[in-house]
This record gives sequence, structure tokens and C-alpha cells, in this order.
Amino acid sequence: MKPEALDHYLSVATMMADAARCVIRPWFRAPLAVVDKADSSPVTIADRTAERVMRAILAERLPDHGVFGEEFGLENEQADYRWLLDPVDGTRSFVTGRPVFGTLIALLKNGVPILGVIDQAVTQERWVGVAGRLTQFASPFGGQAVTRHCATLAQAELSCTSPEMLELAPHDGWKALKNAAKRMTWGGDCYAYGLLALGQIDIIAECDMNPWDWAALVPVIEGAGGRITAWDGSALRYDGDRTVLAVGDAKLHAKAVEMLAQSNTGKSST
Amino acid sequence: MKPEALDHYLSVATMMADAARCVIRPWFRAPLAVVDKADSSPVTIADRTAERVMRAILAERLPDHGVFGEEFGLENEQADYRWLLDPVDGTRSFVTGRPVFGTLIALLKNGVPILGVIDQAVTQERWVGVAGRLTQFASPFGGQAVTRHCATLAQAELSCTSPEMLELAPHDGWKALKNAAKRMTWGGDCYAYGLLALGQIDIIAECDMNPWDWAALVPVIEGAGGRITAWDGSALRYDGDRTVLAVGDAKLHAKAVEMLAQSNTGKSST
Repeated sequence: MKPEALDHYLSVATMMADAARCVIRPWFRAPLAVVDKADSSPVTIADRTAERVMRAILAERLPDHGVFGEEFGLENEQADYRWLLDPVDGTRSFVTGRPVFGTLIALLKNGVPILGVIDQAVTQERWVGVAGRLTQFASPFGGQAVTRHCATLAQAELSCTSPEMLELAPHDGWKALKNAAKRMTWGGDCYAYGLLALGQIDIIAECDMNPWDWAALVPVIEGAGGRITAWDGSALRYDGDRTVLAVGDAKLHAKAVEMLAQSNTGKSST
Repeated sequence: MKPEALDHYLSVATMMADAARCVIRPWFRAPLAVVDKADSSPVTIADRTAERVMRAILAERLPDHGVFGEEFGLENEQADYRWLLDPVDGTRSFVTGRPVFGTLIALLKNGVPILGVIDQAVTQERWVGVAGRLTQFASPFGGQAVTRHCATLAQAELSCTSPEMLELAPHDGWKALKNAAKRMTWGGDCYAYGLLALGQIDIIAECDMNPWDWAALVPVIEGAGGRITAWDGSALRYDGDRTVLAVGDAKLHAKAVEMLAQSNTGKSST
């Protein structure tokens, strides 16, 4: 792919993120019409409207590309390029007024993420990752998209969105990882991965993750110096086991994979 | 007490919050010198410097008042008026770059909170509560300091800072409350109480709370229409049982107290 093509896709992604921000922002802390889907996740007007707006931009600017969003399904299934959209990742944060949710925009080429955007509509923070380039971060609060050094698990700041998420998968290995880490913080969804890219968090291990939850994170984290894979260390795949492991310092990766493997053998840690 | 005196104390509290914000802000997401205390809680330069700065303001403007802060102890123990300071409540959020920690400033008269400030240094959000007055909220993101109606636990959004906090106390009753609530979100520290005052969260039940963790919250939540007590429904006290229950709608209070009481009888909920 020519750099010019990638730059064009990036300009479209930027327009999508700008438009989603405009749509989502007014609904933050406003009385919300919350509709519970079959899986009981909260879905807001902001979520649906932002996905429609982003699809409208794609339909106009890149009509040959495929697109998948949680709310309105898959279009152009056969296209080599596919956009994955998650307008409000972290809806629990959104509906409780916490400015730590995010809009996720990813572009995949034949299943491999080549472009990812994490946008926080309220604080106006944005991470932009492009395959083979350094991750860019813009924020009124400062910060640089460079992961930090952290050679041992005993020094590592570990993060996970919620204990409920872990109940959905075997997590003995996760407990072992938690016991080995320096400290644990909860919450964050995609925003926590953004913080890992800023060198504020060292490890995130989560499960029950959909492709639209992790695809945008891959270029962001890799372009900031980190690594992101499944718990078993393999590349994240559309049809993978729904686990995600991100580390800021690649030296942590093998050790974290080893800890997490305990969930596969059934070996319990106390 | 004359309203003029209260207004004077409020002006001093405002100056303290402004100064703390200036001191804390530059350390957010900066490389931090983290010192682990005996209880392993992270304490930052920002924390210590902000407490010193606030104490300096009090020493100049209200030298007869007492002051207690986590870092530098108690001064003027015999004074009727005592300030409680917690420069960075939510240090785990702070050290991982999440803008959902807060500075807590409370004024107590003979042990009863009469003034409370929750300040978010990064997002520049501030809640100000004064006994007998409506709570004021200032934020670039909007929102009003009025709790929302929520008549039943089944409709209630429940929040708690972390599962680890609950492991420090009997929490069968807490589990019963969680099972009865509509949904659970984790994280937030004092910021979550601010969101309850904005009508974004309906119930918060936490334990292992120090007076400087809850004193500022009392005027903020009561002035927004909510109630805040210990888990057994009694008024929060300096020498109390370290539990805190806050509800946005007072109608939820008796039901929440009933659920939480299961922790006292040892009755288990599944």
C-alpha cells in the first residue's frame, strides 16, 4: 500500500472521529434513553447516532470499503479493507458520567489492523496509530505516546476494566498475574489502553473482548512501543479466543503469557 | 454561625482548592516519585505539596482553626473548627493517569461537616457544598448538582471504588445490595460521589473509609438532595465504623440499609 493511500484513510478516520465527538459530546451527562439489549449492555442514543454518522462518511468517501459496527452490522463483507467501529466503548462509564470511555475506529486490511483511533469526546484526547509509524497523541492534559520501561512483573502496574469481565472466562492465570504485579487498578475500557500507550500503565489483561474492542488498540500500542496479543501470545484474530494482553515493555510479554497460561492448565493460584 | 462567617470560610476553601489545583496539575502524567507508605498506598509529590500549600493558606487566614491532613497530621486539636484535607483522593487513578481522582477539603464544626469541596484538578470540575445551601457545580463538561429520582433498588446504578476495598470488611450485605441493583460500576473514589450529586449514580456503598475521605462529601451530597450515612443508617462519625452509604434519592436509603445489614448478622447472600 502506498503511503498516500494510508494518509487518505487517516484523513477519513480523522473526520469520522471529529464527527463522532460532536455527536457524542451533547449526550454526556444528559438524561439518556438507555435501551437494554439482550445482553443487558447499555446502549445510548449517542452510540447509535455516532455509528450512523461515521457510516455516512465512509459511504461517501470510501464506498468500496467494508464496515462493521456493533449497532448496524456488516456491510461489504468481501472487501479487503474493513472498518470496525465502536462509537462508545465503555458505555458503563458513559452512562455514569465518567469521562473515561472512548470512540474506537479501526481499519483492517485482510484482517490485520493497519490504522486505529481512540478518541475521548469529552476530555478531547485522541490517540492515532498507523502501522509502521509512531503513535500520535493530542490532549489538553499533556502526555506522550511512548510506553515506559518495566522489566519485571513486580514493578508492573496492572489494569483491567472490571471483575465481572473475568468471571466470564477461566481466570486462575489472571489471578496469578495479579498476585505477581505491583498494583492493580480497575476501570478504563479502551481509555486504559491509551494510558498504557502513554507509559502510565504496564500491563492490561482482559477477556470477553470483541474485534471492535481491540482492533483500534493494536496500531496505537505497537506505534507507542508496546505489544498486544491474545493471552497465549499469539496475534489477535477475528476468530480468536477473545482474550487480550497488552504490555508497555515487550520484556514483560513472555512472563505475562506464562502466568496467564495457568488458566489453560487449570492450575490454581492462591 | 453568621452567614458572613461561613462565606469567609468558603472563600478560604476556594483559595485552597485553587492553589491545590495549580500544584497537582503539573504532576499529572509526569514521571512521579512514588513513595510507598507502610500501608502500601501510593503517595505522590503532588499529594504532599498540595497539603503543605493548603496548610499555609489556613495558617495565614484562619490560624485559630484546627487542621488534619493525611500527610502532616493534626494541628490545633482543641479548636471547635477543624479542616480535613485529602489533596489526592484516588491516588491509584492519579498515578495511572485517569482524571477521576479529586482534592477533598472539609470544614467541621464540633465534628459535624459544614462545608465541603471536591475538586478535579485536571478536568477543572468543582463541587462546593455548604450546610443549608444548594450544592454548586462548575465544569467545562456541564452537569447540575441535583440528584435524580430512583424509587427502587432494581432501577439503581450502584458504584464502588474497588473490590479490594470490600475484602477489608464483612461484605455479605454488600453482595446482596449488588444483586438487587440494576447495574454495577467500579472506580471513582470521591469523583463517584460527585457523579451521584449530579444524578448520574444512585447508590455508593463503601467501607474502609477515613474521616478525610467522607467529610467533604456530606455537604456536597446533602445540598444536592441526597443522603449520606454509615451502612447502618447512622450519621457519619469521626470514630464510626468506617462504612459509607450514599443515595441520590432518600427513598432508597432504608432499603439499602436493610440489604447492607446482612453483613452484621453474618447472613450470606448468593
